[in-house]
Amino acid sequence: MKKDLERSLSKLARQAKDASHLLGNISCEKKKDAILKMSEALLSHKDEILAANKLDLKNAFKKKLSSSFVERLTLSEKRIQEMAQSLREIAGLDDPVGKCISSWKRPNGLVISKVRVPIGTILILYEARPNVTSDCIGLCLKSGNSVILRGGSDALHSNTAIFKVCEGVLKEAGLPKGIISFVKIADRRSIDILLRLDSCIDLVMPRGGESLINEVRSKSKIPIIKHYKGVCHVYVEKSADFAMAQGIILNAKVQRPSVCNAAETLLVDQSIAKEFLPTMIECLEDAKVEVRGCPLTRRIVSSAKKATEADWFAEYLDLILAVKVVKNIDEAIAHINRYGSNHSDAIVTRDERQAEKFLQEVDSACVYANASTRFTDGFQFGFGAEIGISTDKLHARGPMGLEELTTYKYVIRGSGQIRE
Amino acid sequence: MKKDLERSLSKLARQAKDASHLLGNISCEKKKDAILKMSEALLSHKDEILAANKLDLKNAFKKKLSSSFVERLTLSEKRIQEMAQSLREIAGLDDPVGKCISSWKRPNGLVISKVRVPIGTILILYEARPNVTSDCIGLCLKSGNSVILRGGSDALHSNTAIFKVCEGVLKEAGLPKGIISFVKIADRRSIDILLRLDSCIDLVMPRGGESLINEVRSKSKIPIIKHYKGVCHVYVEKSADFAMAQGIILNAKVQRPSVCNAAETLLVDQSIAKEFLPTMIECLEDAKVEVRGCPLTRRIVSSAKKATEADWFAEYLDLILAVKVVKNIDEAIAHINRYGSNHSDAIVTRDERQAEKFLQEVDSACVYANASTRFTDGFQFGFGAEIGISTDKLHARGPMGLEELTTYKYVIRGSGQIRE
Repeated sequence: MKKDLERSLSKLARQAKDASHLLGNISCEKKKDAILKMSEALLSHKDEILAANKLDLKNAFKKKLSSSFVERLTLSEKRIQEMAQSLREIAGLDDPVGKCISSWKRPNGLVISKVRVPIGTILILYEARPNVTSDCIGLCLKSGNSVILRGGSDALHSNTAIFKVCEGVLKEAGLPKGIISFVKIADRRSIDILLRLDSCIDLVMPRGGESLINEVRSKSKIPIIKHYKGVCHVYVEKSADFAMAQGIILNAKVQRPSVCNAAETLLVDQSIAKEFLPTMIECLEDAKVEVRGCPLTRRIVSSAKKATEADWFAEYLDLILAVKVVKNIDEAIAHINRYGSNHSDAIVTRDERQAEKFLQEVDSACVYANASTRFTDGFQFGFGAEIGISTDKLHARGPMGLEELTTYKYVIRGSGQIRE
Repeated sequence: MKKDLERSLSKLARQAKDASHLLGNISCEKKKDAILKMSEALLSHKDEILAANKLDLKNAFKKKLSSSFVERLTLSEKRIQEMAQSLREIAGLDDPVGKCISSWKRPNGLVISKVRVPIGTILILYEARPNVTSDCIGLCLKSGNSVILRGGSDALHSNTAIFKVCEGVLKEAGLPKGIISFVKIADRRSIDILLRLDSCIDLVMPRGGESLINEVRSKSKIPIIKHYKGVCHVYVEKSADFAMAQGIILNAKVQRPSVCNAAETLLVDQSIAKEFLPTMIECLEDAKVEVRGCPLTRRIVSSAKKATEADWFAEYLDLILAVKVVKNIDEAIAHINRYGSNHSDAIVTRDERQAEKFLQEVDSACVYANASTRFTDGFQFGFGAEIGISTDKLHARGPMGLEELTTYKYVIRGSGQIRE
């Protein structure tokens, strides 16, 4: 049984790899056209997709899966329309493949060009959200990568239905088999096997919770880009405009607390803490935020609960905020670099030198001066679409658009040059 | 014992990580100055370094290590001068850190800049060559990364001596401890432990043979950039200028057969094989190259030995060349993408359309039209220095200079923007 599984997954991955070599030849227009047709096909097959989703939902209720899981799993006509819209937007974006990054001529006459090319074959491991299926197909096809999708077993019917619709479009367009593949096997050993197929798969992106990411990290022989945690900070420096700081902190914490770019820890300079914290914490409590403070914070605002060491590492994804009074900007930066997750961190200040110091020294994918951390997002950055936000440093960092789904190659044109 | 080892290596890695955060603050001038001083110090301490090298050589003879190993291990006054020269060159290169890659303004007034930053902490695992110690210290310091060096136990005395000289210079310059570290422990378990310290180490680069690379690949939780194999091809298309093809093939195979960018397989279009191969193989045999051919090749030139399936995958690093007659350019490209190592591959042709097809469809870091594969090299590309040649696709591909030792971050400057 395991041998069969290995054989069939190896075959699938080999087919994906072979297809990736053919994808380089397919014109922008043809890729765009296929993505637009998929968008239409999702709408015209919405009844089948919703029926498949009903089966998954029935199982989810039977298995008593959490309400947030069920929420992510649930499709509706509106959600399918959004999926279709997302594909239309991807179709309209600039194609990054083939763009010349730089080009130069060597003294011996060789012309060297650094050119954007697809990464190759990308494996996406995901959990409950069925829209990931069509989003990733659109993004990978547009960037010239073949994609292998392995979604959660609890969304198997929904994902299969969406995949089939997209596969049908590619077949009709006469595009090579293997450009998109879907692992229908619920057996979790399939993940272990896929993660060893580094000769065919160039990149794996786990999209899901911490346990999935840790599993992939420990098992993968394939390079990974992961979206790990978002432990984002706002630091209020002593020269800060209090009203601006309040606005940014409320927005970063309250506007959508369940997402990775929401703030989890507030750092306040000790010289302004007594003046700033009482009103700030009152506003937060009015917005139903539980405040967990360091000893100094609690001396200033007695309603704050006690923060423990674990709170500085915590990604609450909830209406909870850890608050710490720091001696100065150096302590703030050291705190962020130690406890943070290299995601998004902000300073509020009117002192330009302090802003620049923070922007330079904080080791995060996105560093902000006087703006909310909630802007870390491919759409907000103007990328048009995103496949995720990387908390890794290599190969891509922060919001990942189409360009981040490419690598490069050196194209060298000569006239018979040999090396002396 | 193992616990002690873990503790001391974790401490070392933590110190390296902390130092990497301080490195961002050190000016170009200060880094440059330190590298130049190291260069001078290598020369003024050459006697100690040569004495240490003698100890390693004595051990190597006792252990009857191979002559090529001893050759790589051996230092001389000239080699130390070359190491010093290499540091001087690195000192003089442009500092990549802080360069703005792109910058744009969003409709809400946020100004987003994508800025080059160091990767963080880099672990270098290497084998016999002591010059790697000073080269990597220079390259990592220049690019703002802290570095942990773990050289082969058979070069321990030489590496320790070189490291001490460099460490002394940094100490005198008042630079933070931990910018450069050296693992003095010969115990191979130290590698296993280091490869699990992904919370402190951002990148590992194994510089050595296939067994070291495979070991790192199977054990590492840290992102790897590896230089794997160089199975490079030259394809002679039917319109090729025969004299040019001959020159390129001889250069790619014979000029320095022991290096990764030397050619290992020659592919010849069947329509010209009868005309081209006899003279070509005669030239190769005159240059003492052993030719291993496919059945068609052997029908044309009977002196060719028989190539087996293993020959198409082989990185000979020696005066041996596999030769295959192919039906057309599509078969040539498919052969390279299947058996090659994504390193460097060349086409010789007078037909521009065929050249462009090859350059586009061959999935290698460096693709050449009408030039020798031997140009794949940081110096030949004009990078001034190289830390290696990546056969990976992520994060860097092909020759790696200082820029490839950096990543980026997004710096966002606002005036109180919050998300609606």
